[in-house]
Amino acid sequence: MSKPALQFWFEFASTYSYLSAMRIGDVVAKAGVAVEWKPFLLGPIFGAQGWETSPFNIYPDKGRNMWRDMERRARALDLAFVRPDPFPQNSLLAARLTVAGLEEGWGEAFARGVYEVEFAHGLSIAEERVLEGILIKAGADPDSAFEAARSPMIKDRLKAQTQEAISRHIFGAPTFMVGDELFWGDDRLEQAIDWALEKHPAQVGA
Amino acid sequence: MSKPALQFWFEFASTYSYLSAMRIGDVVAKAGVAVEWKPFLLGPIFGAQGWETSPFNIYPDKGRNMWRDMERRARALDLAFVRPDPFPQNSLLAARLTVAGLEEGWGEAFARGVYEVEFAHGLSIAEERVLEGILIKAGADPDSAFEAARSPMIKDRLKAQTQEAISRHIFGAPTFMVGDELFWGDDRLEQAIDWALEKHPAQVGA
Repeated sequence: MSKPALQFWFEFASTYSYLSAMRIGDVVAKAGVAVEWKPFLLGPIFGAQGWETSPFNIYPDKGRNMWRDMERRARALDLAFVRPDPFPQNSLLAARLTVAGLEEGWGEAFARGVYEVEFAHGLSIAEERVLEGILIKAGADPDSAFEAARSPMIKDRLKAQTQEAISRHIFGAPTFMVGDELFWGDDRLEQAIDWALEKHPAQVGA
Repeated sequence: MSKPALQFWFEFASTYSYLSAMRIGDVVAKAGVAVEWKPFLLGPIFGAQGWETSPFNIYPDKGRNMWRDMERRARALDLAFVRPDPFPQNSLLAARLTVAGLEEGWGEAFARGVYEVEFAHGLSIAEERVLEGILIKAGADPDSAFEAARSPMIKDRLKAQTQEAISRHIFGAPTFMVGDELFWGDDRLEQAIDWALEKHPAQVGA
């Protein structure tokens, strides 16, 4: 029997993905569930809905609530939280680096580092010198990492992953997939884990 | 010292408000928190954002997830759940009746009855004969209830309540208010209760 598993689909510009990225390792380990990290881009998904920026910028009261909710939730999780400026951040290069890193073994540590620098320290994750420091801390060689991130293969892989997200009806981040079962939002992580463990009412969807 | 309290802002067309309406009574009683029921209309709030229907209809993948999430969540709460047709339902008359009923003591029972008929049985809450049965079960006199609901005083009161929601940055339902602290979504009810009980980190927002 294979180990129960879920996929963690995340976007670096996403505030709630930060919460999940920082806690998912401990939570799944405790539950005995395997996790696969899946970076993707929300830009094309939002763009297809006619949004040129985050819905939290387009709808002010929704944004106001998100910042306050994040502040409360980060505090409850003992996580530092600052509002990045600008928001949302350009996450393209960080996502490409993560795709490269996940193949080389430093992807998860790098992804956590990106989230920490962005949301705990408020630095710009679009800047190479910021990403370079994160790469070094994650145990990567910056030169070869940037080279890989600029290669057509890695660029195409991130595009394909974003296309996969769209085809699987992913519309926001974080999203947890257990097979074809979709759970949206950091506050659904525990439900996704229960689903992976088959601790759910058999009747649903039967 | 007054009893800790929160306000429950709800809209009859809202799926997640159904979950809260059916469980809030038990949950706040157990916690020792008072609850004030506040019906309002999302139509004017959505309309101001350019939405002519529910965002769950406008954004198909968001809607797809909501229906599935509701199905899972209702099952976990042992609540029946069917998809009303049409969705969203016209909730105007039910909301006006609730405003009248909250003054006369049968408002909460009536509101729960409306949600049950709509989301457990799939009936149309825009129809007077459906509402009449709910009124009788809630202990109201249907004739005088409908007369009150059609009075300028009750109509104005619902309008004023919706205006209050807008001015307090409410943008969706259910919303729980503890003073000026806003909690959006059924999945934030427990956090709102903790806030009312002052079981929250003092540093947040300090």
